[in-house]
Amino acid sequence: MTKHVQLLGISNAIVDILAHVDDDFLNEIGAPLGSMTLIDEQQAHEIYAKMGPATEMSGGSVANTIAGFANLGGSAAYIGRVSDDQLGEIFVHDMRSLGVDIRTNPAANGAPTARCHVLISADGQRTMQTYLGACTELSTQDITEQTVNSPRVILLEGYVWDIPEGPALTQRAIDIARKNSSTVALSLSDSFCVERHRDAFYAAVKDGIDIVFADEDEIMELLQKRTFEEVLPALADFDNLFVLTRSSQGSVIVQNGKTIVQEAITVNEVIDTTGAGDAYTAAFLYGWTADQSLAECARLGTWCATQIIQQVGGRIEKDILYGYQDD
Amino acid sequence: MTKHVQLLGISNAIVDILAHVDDDFLNEIGAPLGSMTLIDEQQAHEIYAKMGPATEMSGGSVANTIAGFANLGGSAAYIGRVSDDQLGEIFVHDMRSLGVDIRTNPAANGAPTARCHVLISADGQRTMQTYLGACTELSTQDITEQTVNSPRVILLEGYVWDIPEGPALTQRAIDIARKNSSTVALSLSDSFCVERHRDAFYAAVKDGIDIVFADEDEIMELLQKRTFEEVLPALADFDNLFVLTRSSQGSVIVQNGKTIVQEAITVNEVIDTTGAGDAYTAAFLYGWTADQSLAECARLGTWCATQIIQQVGGRIEKDILYGYQDD
Repeated sequence: MTKHVQLLGISNAIVDILAHVDDDFLNEIGAPLGSMTLIDEQQAHEIYAKMGPATEMSGGSVANTIAGFANLGGSAAYIGRVSDDQLGEIFVHDMRSLGVDIRTNPAANGAPTARCHVLISADGQRTMQTYLGACTELSTQDITEQTVNSPRVILLEGYVWDIPEGPALTQRAIDIARKNSSTVALSLSDSFCVERHRDAFYAAVKDGIDIVFADEDEIMELLQKRTFEEVLPALADFDNLFVLTRSSQGSVIVQNGKTIVQEAITVNEVIDTTGAGDAYTAAFLYGWTADQSLAECARLGTWCATQIIQQVGGRIEKDILYGYQDD
Repeated sequence: MTKHVQLLGISNAIVDILAHVDDDFLNEIGAPLGSMTLIDEQQAHEIYAKMGPATEMSGGSVANTIAGFANLGGSAAYIGRVSDDQLGEIFVHDMRSLGVDIRTNPAANGAPTARCHVLISADGQRTMQTYLGACTELSTQDITEQTVNSPRVILLEGYVWDIPEGPALTQRAIDIARKNSSTVALSLSDSFCVERHRDAFYAAVKDGIDIVFADEDEIMELLQKRTFEEVLPALADFDNLFVLTRSSQGSVIVQNGKTIVQEAITVNEVIDTTGAGDAYTAAFLYGWTADQSLAECARLGTWCATQIIQQVGGRIEKDILYGYQDD
């Protein structure tokens, strides 16, 4: 049997290719500033050919969270498909080097490892063009009693619904979780992703998902509300735990009609907001799996997200809790 | 015929894999702090498996200089061997995206693209473990009238003498340069490299090389002097142009008994010294190929190196001359 871990992530395994671009570049490729667009292999080649010199690093939203959770000291496992190529080797290395138990073998043939072309504007905003490649080959066969086992929490991401067997394989993970009393969490990924799969997400949240991680835009999109103020009363219809992040307005934790508001920590300068949400989720779940109070989980999440926005790059470093004061 | 360019680089084409390590890590692998060690494929796998999560970017000393020269606005070409794999694609992309004319085809089989494991200590020092892979397959057949053509300057690096056909292929490049009235420059790479190939470098400097780029340690090693003060009188025996960098003590340009001293620019904080020498060389040659005075070339080199040490990463960005004042 596989190792028992606190957190298992199931998500798209992606290597980021980061380069600075000017606004003309975004206009030329027709990408709205700050958006995430899915592209095919041909488009990936075209965009890469147009991009300047780049830097490569492992990415993927829930994969970032799993890496961060492991770096905080939690035990973690991961299910996601890469190809047996150099980018796949990089992705697997970066996870394994943090002690993450990888439960999907690289595909020996088929599409190459997924890459996300991260186009960084002068103001630091990131526009993403993602070629899912090998991710699309993740299937229900990868989700077994053996690979899932009985983690304390299974964390899914909305982006998985973008791959052909995404709905079926996440359902299988939910079924195994129920049988083994694992908690199932879902990160809503981004508001465009919620728009693509709203009905499926809504159904899953109503039946199967225990914890929902979302930012303001994502939860408004899911519930079809125009303001965050309209969101809160609407949550009374759900029995999930909602963890809602609001950038500089902090975060709000809602469960069974109770609401906890966690204020943001003021920073002098925001360097790069990439990965702030993923880091919040990692630290929140790190607290949650250590049976901390929801308020303490929110404080941990806020602390780590605050550190992340003051550095370049989205992944949590080992010493991130240095200076953190327990309540 | 290939395009006529100002600068052609011939060097080891390497992708850097950068990760932070603690001093115990360096002790464990027996690497002296700040050294560059050549390793084989097996050792590369072992070191990579021990390293934490990493970031990948195109590197290589003279390749950095070529990229920097192109980013400054110069026309450049490059001869160096990568494999037809994803790291090779990354290397070629990063050069091509700057307009560099790549004159070596990726190898369809053989060793994978070279990687340099860059181990960054807490104090920012870098210790390098380099697996040369596909670089070792660069051969005299890659150096032809067609691939070399008649650039204003051919820039070689000492590290090329580490590959089997290095001595022969650099000699062929020198022969073609003589025939076509190209100037030949050599960057001495590092003092350990000079130690490995001192006699060959000495002979090349005496016969074939026109411009020598070196830091203090490298020139002291080449001339077997114990202090930099002993170096200067010894240069009277040579008719080369010597461009000697001395970190915070600035740089010294020596030719035919004439010496120009360029002071360093004081900076508040040194972030990362990687690539400072490569950037100096790029900017010096950018001035030189534009027929600037040696003093102006040294000023340009100093300016760019100063910018580089105040940023993370070793390659020159497009706007590096912003704020530079011509004499």
